[in-house]
Amino acid sequence: MTGRKRSLSGIRVTGRFHIGNYLGAGVNYVRLQDDYESYIFVADYHTLTTKPNAREFTDDLYEMVMDLIAIGVDPDRTVIYRQSSIPMVAELTLLLAMVTPLSWVQRVPTFKDKVREQPDNVNLGLFEYPVLQSADIIIVKGDVVPVGRDQAPHLELTREITRRFNRIYRPVFPEPQIVLNPEAPIIKGTDGKTKMSKSLNNIIGVTDAPEVIRKQVMSMVTDTKRIYKTQPGHPRTCNVCAFYKLFFDDWEHYWDLCRKAQIGCQDKKKLLAERIIERFAPFRERRAGLTRERIDAVLKAGAERAQDVAGHTMVEVRDAIGLPPYSRA
Amino acid sequence: MTGRKRSLSGIRVTGRFHIGNYLGAGVNYVRLQDDYESYIFVADYHTLTTKPNAREFTDDLYEMVMDLIAIGVDPDRTVIYRQSSIPMVAELTLLLAMVTPLSWVQRVPTFKDKVREQPDNVNLGLFEYPVLQSADIIIVKGDVVPVGRDQAPHLELTREITRRFNRIYRPVFPEPQIVLNPEAPIIKGTDGKTKMSKSLNNIIGVTDAPEVIRKQVMSMVTDTKRIYKTQPGHPRTCNVCAFYKLFFDDWEHYWDLCRKAQIGCQDKKKLLAERIIERFAPFRERRAGLTRERIDAVLKAGAERAQDVAGHTMVEVRDAIGLPPYSRA
Repeated sequence: MTGRKRSLSGIRVTGRFHIGNYLGAGVNYVRLQDDYESYIFVADYHTLTTKPNAREFTDDLYEMVMDLIAIGVDPDRTVIYRQSSIPMVAELTLLLAMVTPLSWVQRVPTFKDKVREQPDNVNLGLFEYPVLQSADIIIVKGDVVPVGRDQAPHLELTREITRRFNRIYRPVFPEPQIVLNPEAPIIKGTDGKTKMSKSLNNIIGVTDAPEVIRKQVMSMVTDTKRIYKTQPGHPRTCNVCAFYKLFFDDWEHYWDLCRKAQIGCQDKKKLLAERIIERFAPFRERRAGLTRERIDAVLKAGAERAQDVAGHTMVEVRDAIGLPPYSRA
Repeated sequence: MTGRKRSLSGIRVTGRFHIGNYLGAGVNYVRLQDDYESYIFVADYHTLTTKPNAREFTDDLYEMVMDLIAIGVDPDRTVIYRQSSIPMVAELTLLLAMVTPLSWVQRVPTFKDKVREQPDNVNLGLFEYPVLQSADIIIVKGDVVPVGRDQAPHLELTREITRRFNRIYRPVFPEPQIVLNPEAPIIKGTDGKTKMSKSLNNIIGVTDAPEVIRKQVMSMVTDTKRIYKTQPGHPRTCNVCAFYKLFFDDWEHYWDLCRKAQIGCQDKKKLLAERIIERFAPFRERRAGLTRERIDAVLKAGAERAQDVAGHTMVEVRDAIGLPPYSRA
């Protein structure tokens, strides 16, 4: 294989990519494959901590992988696989648990957030999430893990667990490096109030049909203080103007027009919609050619590559611990 | 296979069987194979929670399996395997964790005992121990689990987790029944003070050579209030007399002699030693014929049978949850 470093990213199953996902993480997935031997897995085990029935998210999982390819992640350059296709990761999780002090897991800040989000389903899986995540990373010997700032504490724990394993047994794993994602702008939803999020129904999908994009953009909340077109606008507080910054190189020109009341909100939205439609045209095109069968083939090929790597790792792990070799291949 | 119910027992790796192990659990293992399709696994994953390096207990593991066969567990009638030879049990553990409320695990009383025993190594593995134990049991669809009274709370948890899984998904697992072991007498060690235990160096091994048994029995602490042979003894408080109850049908006769000062402590010990040596002769004989290669073959055959059963279970489990089939056999 290449001498390049290996990057690893995991994605919980949400569904189709919207602009927030795309600009927050998607563009980065595409960039990674230029510099790294890139691995991306769809975290279906992890998703069970919130949605216990995998059938309920299987369609979303396919949609997500289709969008992943649509935005430019190339299955020939990035290994894409389902987490559950390497069940050995569960064995590594168990083995890591044996050398992970309980107190390390208890102090993970995101656990408390999760408890707040789903107080009626505080399960053990949620609690040991960061250990499974560690196993995900090191089982493929990930060198770098690009994450958002909120995930950094998890990754710190992964590094600690890795060091501890290497010290107690022998240095089997590279210590994964955290690479903070370029600070992505927070993308507000069409409501202009909160972060774009599927559950809030305020999204613009990156592979949506032009008429859907148009409808969504036209529904966007703009400058609430500008009631008449003749009033000057306030681009700094207007969500549509924020989108201009993301989609137009000459956004300042439009902000100026807005401030001078030389362009109305409706027209601004019309222009924006067409701009987004144009920008995402290649995504829609790639996406149109994808079938469920093609995704199955991508995931199968990815699983085989990931299994090979994980299998080798686990042979080393069991030997380091002193467990007998697997009795079946 | 037979229409008999399946029993499952797990043993942590300690080492050679001593009289305490044998009378406490061993005799039961032998009995089980008459009434059940019996499975016994050596809990090497579990043992990692206290001894992280498996090489340190591998010799003990072999000794233990040799003794298991020596005392009459017949590999043709009982499936004997290493826990780590079915790594799928780790995947089931993970999947069970997703539907196990954290609070259920937190309230397991034995965890607190463990924390007291090894305050410097309170690891996550120790914490999730009862969930791994549940997976051990249900992955082979154990119908009955013979346990001592101290393990009953774990098994109650297993039953709860099983019910929960069956309810959330579909009834994949039989709800394992707890069968309390016939109340075994507490066997004190040769020091007459505490429970017989390898770590206290107060044991009499069931496959020890006659001269070792003789030496150990002769070292036993007897009635400390009886200084001269001419004084009457107090069988109720004498550990040697307690052993008479276990090894002589006519123990009352000897207790009587002791009370009347018609037998001395030395003679009592000599008689006891010879009785134990005689009683365990078949064990020594079977044991003498066992090689490490034979044990490897036993564990390999056991692993294959257990893997078959576990593999079938996991195919059902993944289907129930809605995860894709394994991509490799």
